[in-house]
Amino acid sequence: MAPSVAAADVIKEHGPGLKQRPNVPHKAAPAEEEMLVLNTIRCLAADLCQQFKGGHPGTVMGAAAIGVGLWRYIMKYNPSNPEWFARDRFVLSVGHACLLQYLMLHFSGYEAWTLDAIKQYHAPVTDGIAAGHPEIEFPGVECTTGPLGQGIANAVGLAVAGKQLGARFNKDGFPIVDGKVWCMTGDGCLQEGVGQEAISMAGHWGLDNLVLIYDNNSVTVDGNIDACFTDDTSAKLRAMGWHTIEVYDGSNDLAAIVKALEEARDVKGKPTLINIRTIIGLGSANQNTGSVHGAALGDDDVAYVKTQLGFKPDAKFVVPDKVYEYFDECKPRGAKAEAEWNDLLRRYAEKYPADAKELQRRREGKLAEGWEKSVPTKDALPKDPIPTRKASGIMVQSLVPKDETFVAGSADLVESTFVNFKGQVEFQRPDSGLGDYTGRQIRYGIREFAMVAVGNGLAAYQKGMFIPIMSTFFMFWLYAAPAVRMSALQKLRFIGIATHDAIGIGEDGPTHQPVSLSNFYRGLPNINFMRPADAEEVIGAWLLALGDEDHPSLFALSRQPVPLLPGSNRAKVRLGAYTIHGDEESASDITLVATGAEVSRSVELAKSLESAGYKNVRVVSMPSMKDFDRQPASYRRKVLPTDKSLVVAIEAWGSLPWARYAHAGAHMHTFGLSAPQATLYEHFGFSVNNLTEKIDSWAKGLQGRIPGVGEFEELLNGFVADKHYAGK
Amino acid sequence: MAPSVAAADVIKEHGPGLKQRPNVPHKAAPAEEEMLVLNTIRCLAADLCQQFKGGHPGTVMGAAAIGVGLWRYIMKYNPSNPEWFARDRFVLSVGHACLLQYLMLHFSGYEAWTLDAIKQYHAPVTDGIAAGHPEIEFPGVECTTGPLGQGIANAVGLAVAGKQLGARFNKDGFPIVDGKVWCMTGDGCLQEGVGQEAISMAGHWGLDNLVLIYDNNSVTVDGNIDACFTDDTSAKLRAMGWHTIEVYDGSNDLAAIVKALEEARDVKGKPTLINIRTIIGLGSANQNTGSVHGAALGDDDVAYVKTQLGFKPDAKFVVPDKVYEYFDECKPRGAKAEAEWNDLLRRYAEKYPADAKELQRRREGKLAEGWEKSVPTKDALPKDPIPTRKASGIMVQSLVPKDETFVAGSADLVESTFVNFKGQVEFQRPDSGLGDYTGRQIRYGIREFAMVAVGNGLAAYQKGMFIPIMSTFFMFWLYAAPAVRMSALQKLRFIGIATHDAIGIGEDGPTHQPVSLSNFYRGLPNINFMRPADAEEVIGAWLLALGDEDHPSLFALSRQPVPLLPGSNRAKVRLGAYTIHGDEESASDITLVATGAEVSRSVELAKSLESAGYKNVRVVSMPSMKDFDRQPASYRRKVLPTDKSLVVAIEAWGSLPWARYAHAGAHMHTFGLSAPQATLYEHFGFSVNNLTEKIDSWAKGLQGRIPGVGEFEELLNGFVADKHYAGK
Repeated sequence: MAPSVAAADVIKEHGPGLKQRPNVPHKAAPAEEEMLVLNTIRCLAADLCQQFKGGHPGTVMGAAAIGVGLWRYIMKYNPSNPEWFARDRFVLSVGHACLLQYLMLHFSGYEAWTLDAIKQYHAPVTDGIAAGHPEIEFPGVECTTGPLGQGIANAVGLAVAGKQLGARFNKDGFPIVDGKVWCMTGDGCLQEGVGQEAISMAGHWGLDNLVLIYDNNSVTVDGNIDACFTDDTSAKLRAMGWHTIEVYDGSNDLAAIVKALEEARDVKGKPTLINIRTIIGLGSANQNTGSVHGAALGDDDVAYVKTQLGFKPDAKFVVPDKVYEYFDECKPRGAKAEAEWNDLLRRYAEKYPADAKELQRRREGKLAEGWEKSVPTKDALPKDPIPTRKASGIMVQSLVPKDETFVAGSADLVESTFVNFKGQVEFQRPDSGLGDYTGRQIRYGIREFAMVAVGNGLAAYQKGMFIPIMSTFFMFWLYAAPAVRMSALQKLRFIGIATHDAIGIGEDGPTHQPVSLSNFYRGLPNINFMRPADAEEVIGAWLLALGDEDHPSLFALSRQPVPLLPGSNRAKVRLGAYTIHGDEESASDITLVATGAEVSRSVELAKSLESAGYKNVRVVSMPSMKDFDRQPASYRRKVLPTDKSLVVAIEAWGSLPWARYAHAGAHMHTFGLSAPQATLYEHFGFSVNNLTEKIDSWAKGLQGRIPGVGEFEELLNGFVADKHYAGK
Repeated sequence: MAPSVAAADVIKEHGPGLKQRPNVPHKAAPAEEEMLVLNTIRCLAADLCQQFKGGHPGTVMGAAAIGVGLWRYIMKYNPSNPEWFARDRFVLSVGHACLLQYLMLHFSGYEAWTLDAIKQYHAPVTDGIAAGHPEIEFPGVECTTGPLGQGIANAVGLAVAGKQLGARFNKDGFPIVDGKVWCMTGDGCLQEGVGQEAISMAGHWGLDNLVLIYDNNSVTVDGNIDACFTDDTSAKLRAMGWHTIEVYDGSNDLAAIVKALEEARDVKGKPTLINIRTIIGLGSANQNTGSVHGAALGDDDVAYVKTQLGFKPDAKFVVPDKVYEYFDECKPRGAKAEAEWNDLLRRYAEKYPADAKELQRRREGKLAEGWEKSVPTKDALPKDPIPTRKASGIMVQSLVPKDETFVAGSADLVESTFVNFKGQVEFQRPDSGLGDYTGRQIRYGIREFAMVAVGNGLAAYQKGMFIPIMSTFFMFWLYAAPAVRMSALQKLRFIGIATHDAIGIGEDGPTHQPVSLSNFYRGLPNINFMRPADAEEVIGAWLLALGDEDHPSLFALSRQPVPLLPGSNRAKVRLGAYTIHGDEESASDITLVATGAEVSRSVELAKSLESAGYKNVRVVSMPSMKDFDRQPASYRRKVLPTDKSLVVAIEAWGSLPWARYAHAGAHMHTFGLSAPQATLYEHFGFSVNNLTEKIDSWAKGLQGRIPGVGEFEELLNGFVADKHYAGK
C-alpha cells in the first residue's frame, strides 16, 4: 500500500497521519484504504490538469482530505436529488479548486459527474459541466464562485436564509429547516475585503449554521503567504465573534478533520472557523510552493507524484475499485435521509397545515397571492413632486410587509433609500434585544459589496424563495459591482435600490456623484438596469422586476423631487422607451430622449424649443436601454425617428452609449462638484435656457441636414469651466 | 465659563473630563480655555450645518477634542506652507466630518481657510473650497475622501511612501523624511472591506509611521452600531499586528487624547490604533443618536446646543478671541520647524550631494534623465507573436530598475502580469528576511481594491515622486474600480496593468472574463484607458502614460500572443485611433475598427473580405476612444469615413459605445464560457469565416446605402446558443 507522503519536513506541527479513526457514526474505513482514496484524488488532479496543460492541481492535492471528510462523513445531501431542499449546502469560495468538488461529487454518486464529464475540465468544448470555476447551474453546486472572497459572503447569505427559514417554520420536534452551510476558503478569500465584511456580519449575527473551512496552505500564486499576509486569522475571527478550531495536519489527518467538522457542526450561537494546515500540491516535487498553484505539474512531475503516492507513473486516471467502494454508502445514506425528511414534512403538514402551505408557496417561488392588488394605481400616487426613491418606498410598503418572500435591507441607509417597511423586525440574534431570526429587515452595515454577495446567497438558497431588496446610494453600487456581476452571471434575482443617482445628490460633492457608473450597468448582460422618470415609472420598473425571476434589477433613483408626468405609463416601461410628451403621430423637428430626473426637465425644454419655433418637440423617456433594444425596429424607429427628426439625448451622466439613439446630447464630461443640486444643474449646463440655446445653435448649423453616424454632437462639451475637475 | 456637557449618563466609562494637563512640550492651556475651544468648534459645526440645512454636524461635535489634540499639540506642519515636504500628513477617512478638518485648518492658521471660506460649506456656489468632503486640491488636504474605507488605504499608501523614502534617503543624524501619517476613521471605514484590506497590509509591513485614530462614537446613519457591527476592533487589529491604545472619554478628555497620540507617535515596529470613545453630536438634545449624523440639527436644537455649551442661543458663528489665542502658537511653531528642516536638508546636501540631488529630482516629479533611451525601438521588439501583457513587461524591465520613481506591484499575480523587474527588492519589514523598506516591489496580496487605494496614497505623497505600477487580471480591476475612480477624480497618476483582458483568458471561464467592464473605464473622466493591439502599441500606451502626469492610465492587455503588426505605430497611439492596415487615401468599401487582440484578427478578416470582393478593406486600430474623440473632426472622418464607407467594429466586449464610431459591430452579448481561447473566439462567432459571412450578408442587404443613426447592427446578436448564459 502507498505510504503517506512524508510531510514532517514541511510543516513541523504535523502528526504522523491517520493514527486514530474518525469518531463518526459511519463504518470506519481502515487507514490504508483512506490513504488510497486521498492519493487517488491527488493523482486524478494531477492527470486532469496535465491532459490540457492547465488548471489548479495544488489545492486539490493538498485539501483532498477536507473533501473526503465533508462528503464521506459529515455533509447531509442526496446524490440522487441534488436539489433536495433540506440538504447541507457547500460553497467552494476558493473556486479555482473546483476539481476537488467535481471529484467529490463524482465519488459520492452524483449522476452527472462522471469521470468523463470531469475530463472535460479545460477541454476545447463549450457544452461541458466541468467549468474552470464551479457554476451554479450544474448539480451539486450552490453558487458560482471564482472571484475571490465572494464565496464566503454567498455562504453567509445561504446561512442567513437557512436561519431565517428555520426561525419562521421550524416547530418543536419538527426541525424541517436545519441544514448547515459549509464553505471552503483559502488565503485569498480571507485577504479580500468582501470576505472580511461577510465574516464580520456572520459573527455579528451569530450564524451557528455556518462553518468556514480554511485550507491554510500558506502558499499563493506568487509564493509564500508570509510575504503578504501575516494576520493571525483565528484570533482575528475570534475578535469578530467566531468559534475557532485548529487542525495541524490537514493533508493527512482525516480523523482530526472529521473531529473538527463534528465539533463545528455542534457549536451553538456562533459561526465556526476551522483553520486547517495543508500542504499545497502534496506529492509533487514542488509541493508547498506557488508553482503548483495555477499550472499543470508537467509530465515528469505527474510521474513523480504517482511514484510518491504508490501509483504507476505512466497509468492515467486510475481509480481502484476500493475507492469507489469507500464511497458506496453515500448514495443510500442520502436517499434515506431525504425519505426521513419527507416523512417529517408530511407529519408537519398534518399538524401545521397553514405553515406547510406557506412553505410550499415559498419553495415554488411564487409571490403571495393577490400581491398585484397592493400596487397603487397612477391616480392614487401623490400629486405633488416626490423623489423617485420615495416612490420606490411606496412599493416597498405595499409589498414587503405582506409577503415573507421579501427581505429588505440597506448598507446603513435604510431611511434615505426608503426600504424601512411597516412592522419590520430586524434579522438579529434573539439575545441582542434588537430583533430575532425571523426578521426580514437586514442591517448589512456599511458593507455594500458583501451586502450584495450575501444577497446572492439568499437568492441562491432556492430559486424565488427569497427576493432580497438591497439599497444604498447609486455611487456605492460601484463598491458592490463585482457582486452584482455575479448576480447577473448566475441569473439570481434581487431588487436593487440605487438612490441619489446623479449630480442631484448635490452638496455631498463629486465623491458621491455617479457620472460614469451607469455605463457599467447598462453594458452588463442579464440585468434590468432602469432609471425611471417619475413615480409611475418607478412602479413600472418594480413590476418588470417582479415579473422577471431570472434576472437581477437595479433602479437608479433621484434624491430630488420630480413631478408626476401626465404621459408616464407603467406598462410602457418594459418597452424600454416611449413617448411621454408630445404627439408621436405628427412629424417632429426635434425629439428629446431622456431618463430619470432629466425627463421632466426635458418636458420644460421641449416647451422652450417650441417657443423658439421648433415644431412638435417630443420627449421620449428611456428607463431601460436594454429593453428598448429588444423591441422591433418598427417600434424603435417610430419612437426615435432618427431619419426624420433631430434626436437629442439629455442625461446628467456621461454620453458613452447615446450615439446609438441620438444625433446629439447634453451630458456630464467631468466629475461633479459640491453645491445644491439646482446650482449644479445650472453650472453643468443643464438649465432649460442654456440647452435651448445650444440645441438651437446646433440645429441651425445643420441647415436641415440629418447628421449621420460618426457625427454625434456633445452639446455641453467644453461648457464647464470648473478649474478642479475639468476633463483633459 | 461653560461647563463640560455631562457625559456620564451616556458612556459609563467616561472619566470626569480634563483633570490632568496634556504632557506636551507646549504651553499648556487652562482647562477652562480648552473647554471654550471645544465648545466653540461644536457651536460652529451646528451653525455651519444649520445655515443651509444640511451636512454632518455630529462627528465634528463629538470629535472636536481629537482635532484639537492633533493640530494644537501633536502634528508637525507649517500653516504658511501647506506643501512643506517634511510635514506630517493627515487623512480624514471619515470624509463627511470635513468641517472638523476645515475648522482646524482655520484655527491653526492656514490662510485659505478663513471662516468665510468655511461658511460656503453647502452654499449655492461652485468656486468654494469647503467641499462636501475634503478635496486634495485645497490647502492642508492630503487626499480626497468620502467613499468610506478608502481613506485608511490612502493613509497606508502615504505611510509606505514615507517609510520607503526614509529608508532610501535618511542618513545617520539626518532624519530628513520622518513625517507621521495620522488617519481619522469612524465605524464605517472599519466596516468597509477596503479598510480591512489596508489595515492588514499596514500590520504586515509594520508601518510604525502610521496612526489610525478611531472616532468610536458607536452611532451610524441608521442608529446604534450594535445593530450591525460588533467586532472587537482593538483585538482584531492586534491580531493583524497593530499596537492599540484605548481612550475612554474622547469628547472631553483632551489630556488623555494627547497622551495617546504621543504614545502612538513613539511606537516602533507597528502601526497604532487609538480607539477613542466619543459622543456624536455632543451637546445636542439628540446627542448619541443617528439623527445628528447626516442632517442639520434644526434651529431649536442649535439653540439648545449653545445653551448647553455656555453660548448665547441666538448668536451665530461666535469665536471668542481666547480661542484664536489658544492656537496662536501653531503658525510660528510650524515656520520654525520648517526652517530647522531646511537647515538640516542644506547640511545633508553638503554631506550627501548625490542623494540630495536624487531627492530633489524626485521632489520635482521628474523621471530619471535619459529614460527614453531605455525604450526599445520597434525593430528591437520580438518578431514572434507575444501577449501584450508580456510586451508591457518589456517596458517594466526597461524603466523600473533604473528609476526609483517607480514602485511596481501586484495583487498576487506578479508573474502573470509581468511586473517582476530585474534586481527587485521587496518592500518588507527588514526583520522579515524577505526584503526591506527600500524595496520597490510591492506585494499587495489578494487585495485589489486596497492595492489601488494604497497606490493613490503613494501618488498623493508628493506629485510625481512615486509612480505606482499596479497589476491584476482585468476582471479584478472591477474590485479596484472604486479606487480607480478616486485616482481619476484626484488626478493621481498610476500605471495600471490589466491583463487577461477578454474571453482570451479562456479556460478560467466566465467568472474571469470581462465583457462589460471596459464600459466603466471608457466612460470614466480623467483616465487614459487603452487597449493596445500589439507590442508596438503597448509601448505607445506606456509613452502616453509617462507623458501625462495628471491622470492615471490603465492598459487592457491580452493573455494570448498577438503578432507584431507591420502598420502599428507607437506615435499614433495618442491619436486614439489610426489606420493600421490598408490604404487610407483610396476609397474603402468597408472599414474595420478594432482594439487589442481583435486587431490582428481584423487584418485577417480584411483579407478575407477582399477575397469576397470588397475593395480596399481597411483596418483601424483604436487603442483609446477618448483620445480619438479629442482629435479634430477632419482627422476622425478621415480615419473612420462613416459617410462613405461601411464601418464595422470588432471587439470581444459588449457593444455599448460603438454606435458612435461604426454602423455595425461584432461583440459579446452574454457572459463567456470555460474553454480554450481559440474555442471561445470560434464559439462566440469571432472566426474570420463567420464574420466574413455576417458582414457580407449585412452589406448586401443594404444595397449600397449607408445606414444612419439608430440603425446600429449587432452582427453577432443571437449568434450564441449557449444554454446557460444566453442574454435575456
